[in-house]
Amino acid sequence: LNEDDRRLLEMKNTSELMLDLAYSSLIYQNKVIAKEVIELEDRVDRLHEAIIRSALGKSKEPKNFDRSLIMIKISDSIERIADAALDIADVVLRDIELHPVVKKSLEDSDVVIQKHVVENGSLLHGKTLGEIKLATETGVWVIAIRRGYDWIYGPDEGTTISGGDILYARGPADSEKIIAPWIKGK
Amino acid sequence: LNEDDRRLLEMKNTSELMLDLAYSSLIYQNKVIAKEVIELEDRVDRLHEAIIRSALGKSKEPKNFDRSLIMIKISDSIERIADAALDIADVVLRDIELHPVVKKSLEDSDVVIQKHVVENGSLLHGKTLGEIKLATETGVWVIAIRRGYDWIYGPDEGTTISGGDILYARGPADSEKIIAPWIKGK
Repeated sequence: LNEDDRRLLEMKNTSELMLDLAYSSLIYQNKVIAKEVIELEDRVDRLHEAIIRSALGKSKEPKNFDRSLIMIKISDSIERIADAALDIADVVLRDIELHPVVKKSLEDSDVVIQKHVVENGSLLHGKTLGEIKLATETGVWVIAIRRGYDWIYGPDEGTTISGGDILYARGPADSEKIIAPWIKGK
Repeated sequence: LNEDDRRLLEMKNTSELMLDLAYSSLIYQNKVIAKEVIELEDRVDRLHEAIIRSALGKSKEPKNFDRSLIMIKISDSIERIADAALDIADVVLRDIELHPVVKKSLEDSDVVIQKHVVENGSLLHGKTLGEIKLATETGVWVIAIRRGYDWIYGPDEGTTISGGDILYARGPADSEKIIAPWIKGK
């Protein structure tokens, strides 16, 4: 993958995470999660601008024109998805009290996003996702890992988990209890 | 759930499916999938209008004002996500040949959406998703089922599969082969 393709893929992954987090912030009335959506939107904006700059630069050569057009179109669409996620999170940040029924309607959705902090000395610390078979054992799929200022999107079997990592995971509503013994330090 | 909440939930589920399908149509250059995105957008538009009409009607009572405001904000955000999905699918429908590298960049994403037609007499026919443990056995998660003109979003363990059903599923790239014996008729 070249630099532009890496940017587009990161935009796609980030916008998907933003949507998941935005809906979760609504359901749990959680301002901390809503603020992460804002932070991620900034990242999407910068990637979007970088893609446009690069596309404009390359479009001077006729053979690159169509590709530049498509890159801008797709990047623009993803940027608008990110903006929509931001507006959803904004409802939470603006302190409008969410009618419980609106929450309920979104909660009934099949996707529940959870945030788990991995403690030092826990079962997960120093292990790869493949070794611990978290998804198979608990039904919880890690969709992103926040490590300090970095994000790992779509971690795979080879991704090593460390104490301090924040896992964003998709799973059944009752899996909070199931995953607890894996992430708590001893 | 009341009528409005059901609409909002259906909008959310539909917009998520539209995004999955739109990216898949890009990756596989598949116009049939791209056209389904258009059809679904029409459904989202109608739900969006119904939510606005209902919110306006209810906002006359002061106690409903904030709720109406939030319903319109969220519904509007979801409608814009659906529009963005439509624009992504539009790239495929407008016959702009996709540069292979753009495809590759999206393919590298962790999510691969597959479409499977269940044949009559197959192992899946007449079974619930819980009975066959499809996700556990194959790693393939059914996210939506198209049955004639109806859609079932987020099917659960109790959902019965029938011959003729079209399954939209999320799974690893190599799972097409793994799922084949489950959906082929004998």
